[in-house]
Amino acid sequence: MRIILVGFGVVGQNLAKLLLSRSADLYGQYGMKPRIVACVDRKGAAVSPAGLDLRDLLEKKKKTGRIVGARNDTQFDVQQVIENVEAEIVIECTPTNLVDGEPGMSHLISAMKTGKHVISVNKGPLALAFPSLIELANFNGVMLRFSGTVGGGTPILEFAKRCLKGDRITSFRGILNGTTNYILSKMEERLTYDQALKDASEKGYAEADPTLDVEGYDAAAKLVIMANWIMGMKVTIRDVKRSGIVGIEQAAIMEALESGKSIKLLAVCDGRHLEVGATEVPKLDPVCVNGTLNAVTFSSEHSGSQTIIGKGAGGMETASAILRDMIEIRDSVFSK
Amino acid sequence: MRIILVGFGVVGQNLAKLLLSRSADLYGQYGMKPRIVACVDRKGAAVSPAGLDLRDLLEKKKKTGRIVGARNDTQFDVQQVIENVEAEIVIECTPTNLVDGEPGMSHLISAMKTGKHVISVNKGPLALAFPSLIELANFNGVMLRFSGTVGGGTPILEFAKRCLKGDRITSFRGILNGTTNYILSKMEERLTYDQALKDASEKGYAEADPTLDVEGYDAAAKLVIMANWIMGMKVTIRDVKRSGIVGIEQAAIMEALESGKSIKLLAVCDGRHLEVGATEVPKLDPVCVNGTLNAVTFSSEHSGSQTIIGKGAGGMETASAILRDMIEIRDSVFSK
Repeated sequence: MRIILVGFGVVGQNLAKLLLSRSADLYGQYGMKPRIVACVDRKGAAVSPAGLDLRDLLEKKKKTGRIVGARNDTQFDVQQVIENVEAEIVIECTPTNLVDGEPGMSHLISAMKTGKHVISVNKGPLALAFPSLIELANFNGVMLRFSGTVGGGTPILEFAKRCLKGDRITSFRGILNGTTNYILSKMEERLTYDQALKDASEKGYAEADPTLDVEGYDAAAKLVIMANWIMGMKVTIRDVKRSGIVGIEQAAIMEALESGKSIKLLAVCDGRHLEVGATEVPKLDPVCVNGTLNAVTFSSEHSGSQTIIGKGAGGMETASAILRDMIEIRDSVFSK
Repeated sequence: MRIILVGFGVVGQNLAKLLLSRSADLYGQYGMKPRIVACVDRKGAAVSPAGLDLRDLLEKKKKTGRIVGARNDTQFDVQQVIENVEAEIVIECTPTNLVDGEPGMSHLISAMKTGKHVISVNKGPLALAFPSLIELANFNGVMLRFSGTVGGGTPILEFAKRCLKGDRITSFRGILNGTTNYILSKMEERLTYDQALKDASEKGYAEADPTLDVEGYDAAAKLVIMANWIMGMKVTIRDVKRSGIVGIEQAAIMEALESGKSIKLLAVCDGRHLEVGATEVPKLDPVCVNGTLNAVTFSSEHSGSQTIIGKGAGGMETASAILRDMIEIRDSVFSK
């Protein structure tokens, strides 16, 4: 299994570490021998048909901040690497952009057009164009997977898709963004919005520009991915009625708390409409989790309501989601 | 797909209803045409190679409490039906017996020895002899499935087995018994143990003889099934260090509550030891759910901790778990 890894930030590097530490096990248990034949980041590309030395690559990146200069390195245009290097899978780990989805959008399209399966942990292209990307995958006979886009290492998408077979999910609601959930949880400890946001930044939970999180865009992107994949809806982020938690009053938080409730940034899909916004949730509701946790409750026709809770982010956790996608692609291609 | 249904109580009847209501959908979506060719309960057996009329069967049972007398009925010995009626799957829904596992144990063994796949919602045989039953299944080249034994309709076993592929679960802990969780939750509302037990009985959450629940046997049986299936341990209920919640003091409950904790009947597997007992759990821990809910937290090597929460019982919910097993068996046999 030959892989082109596009983007070598936190997730990409953790994937390299995971592949190193699990290689014997992956071969023994799944008959899988993944080789990263090309790795691309903003500053260059390393290519080796025999498989890059991941230890080398990680060390180089750590020491110099670049991957070129690692053994077998070559300078290439990203698009050229994706299209011309022979590989079965392209893993897209560049940062999420919810305006036009670039550069991830072009990477995904090039990969699928040249017959490569794609694993994306980049939410941008999916939030903006899920229906047409799935169509492109089907047209080219390749698989498009994205387990790491929702819930980090928590297998929320797989749970809905695989564990509730034979049943029909009728709706779902959840906390899909850890940053805002951390801020809201801190506000219950009497911090103001600004103090809580500052605390989240200091702990590394919030980006320098927290807009995507606090205005609900990140949660909306995940909601769109779930609605398409789980409910078969054909929607994009433009179909989400979205609001965030900016400037939410400390008094409102405390008032909810007094009646046994928490204000949460809840993403809701009732099968027809999509909405993200601050909502009062009873403390005893399983979906009402604190800190950076994510939680989703699925309601099904026959098997009742089920909630799945886990950390919604983290480099190694997200890398483990990529590994699950790799195994699924292998299993599916193998079983044909 | 021909099915022998053994036991026609709440779960069996709900399965019949589910098959009736989903038949078009099951054929369309999964290419599955399940036919119940024999149905056995304590009082008799109805057999029809062409498939029993489930509407008839349900009506008969409702009116007379018996299934014989329904169209195509015949009197048979249970064991004979299981061994001699031609079918692909035996579904075992008789009551759980944790002393010797009977009559379920004999049903499972006969079914597998005559080359039939088995779906058991009966915990007894599995809690007492999981390792040897799995061996028997492998020896006879049949599948043994039991999704409904843990978590009712909540796909706890599937979640662990399917959604965390490529990762290694290192431990898990959970609330596996809804009856005791209801009693403990009520005690937090200042009821005594006896009052809470009485309330649970009146609401139909506790059996006339609540021993299996309140002394931790039911949770222990589920823990054993999970440890074998998920962790690959070879254990039986005799390997569980078990205690229950009988006579637990109201004062202890309130004391825990004051320090932000709840006393829960927790089942724990650390990969080597199995234990069921009353344990203090922080209120903010996702596994700390109230009422009749069940919850399990899995800890994995790379993808962190994940919690799954749902109703742990219910006739239709458990029937939906049987349906998931049927689909899995069909998929697996079909893909060979």
